[in-house]
Amino acid sequence: MERKQEISDAVIGRMPRYYRYICKLEAEGIQRISSKALAEQMGLTASQIRQDFNCFGGFGQQGYGYNIEKLKEELANILGLHSGRTAILVGVGNLGRALLNNFDFEGSGFRVLYAFDCDLSIVGQQIGKCTVRKAEEMHDYVLVHKPDVAVLTLSRKVAPAVARNLVEDGIKGLWNFTGEDLHLEGLGIPVENVHLSDSMMRLSQFVNAHESDHTEA
Amino acid sequence: MERKQEISDAVIGRMPRYYRYICKLEAEGIQRISSKALAEQMGLTASQIRQDFNCFGGFGQQGYGYNIEKLKEELANILGLHSGRTAILVGVGNLGRALLNNFDFEGSGFRVLYAFDCDLSIVGQQIGKCTVRKAEEMHDYVLVHKPDVAVLTLSRKVAPAVARNLVEDGIKGLWNFTGEDLHLEGLGIPVENVHLSDSMMRLSQFVNAHESDHTEA
Repeated sequence: MERKQEISDAVIGRMPRYYRYICKLEAEGIQRISSKALAEQMGLTASQIRQDFNCFGGFGQQGYGYNIEKLKEELANILGLHSGRTAILVGVGNLGRALLNNFDFEGSGFRVLYAFDCDLSIVGQQIGKCTVRKAEEMHDYVLVHKPDVAVLTLSRKVAPAVARNLVEDGIKGLWNFTGEDLHLEGLGIPVENVHLSDSMMRLSQFVNAHESDHTEA
Repeated sequence: MERKQEISDAVIGRMPRYYRYICKLEAEGIQRISSKALAEQMGLTASQIRQDFNCFGGFGQQGYGYNIEKLKEELANILGLHSGRTAILVGVGNLGRALLNNFDFEGSGFRVLYAFDCDLSIVGQQIGKCTVRKAEEMHDYVLVHKPDVAVLTLSRKVAPAVARNLVEDGIKGLWNFTGEDLHLEGLGIPVENVHLSDSMMRLSQFVNAHESDHTEA
């Protein structure tokens, strides 16, 4: 598996977007696509697509383009979507609830086993496909059932301590919505931080820049 | 305003994160910080921080570090947080509701004026600080009140058509949660796409890669 070591995080980071487009093309009934046509749809260049796919050995046949069904399967394998990964969700506020009710965890390769919260009034509730359990049961649960990742939708203040405990108990990855930059804590496992406020501020900044460009012109 | 043209999207994209850290330091009562100390906290190098800030004219004094209060103010201006921007939210499902109830729009520079939905059973409801209005009133509302941006939390299928109408009516930016890559539609305004499934799949992929690295070692 030497290949894997050489692939940059940037290339890895682009794979979900390829997968999304390929799924869309499949849903439209398309069976084969050239790197040029895929590039046009995605706003990339054909050579970038070929380079990215070559990191994983390349999936096309020169002159024939990509078989959509096969490409989807290859990308799903790279993304680990068939690895039977499991998750728990920690903190059932509005965001946790919105994710449990709406987010297609299974489409992203994960089955959510349980949610945990310290608010006893919601313990036992079924939200989406998932039941809420007492926060104090989480430690034993994780040790016994070994879920792969934890979705952190709890409050920012307690996030570092909870994250450390989860890692000690064997969690292998964190999907972090708390606003705390947990990848800096030296946890030693993959952390995917989602900072919605950064995203909204970027929009603010781009709107300002765009407006002043047009005012000057 | 020549400077603005030269600043790359990558530099702009890093500003919200700087702002987040500076707010945190201010909340901890810290008044001054060197680029070296800030770099350590953020997992960057001091020279990258100095380079980024120099794009906007630099905010520090050689040998004295950065004054936190002043730096926060400068970053807030760059991010347009004091521009009095306004927003509407389109589509009040679980995600729209979670954002209205929890997301600190004002902290990110926006006041949400109204939410719009076609489900008449929720029209008139107050969610967070915001009232839900009929979707069919949106067109006239936007023409008259000229909100700056629209938060799109409606279904993916209708997203491109709704986005086009909003742009025609004068909306200046989109915060897009629909899963559709709207920046490719040639709308001519800034679009910030939030793809949660891409984020979760990246985590899946990193967990797989991390696991196989450790299995081999």
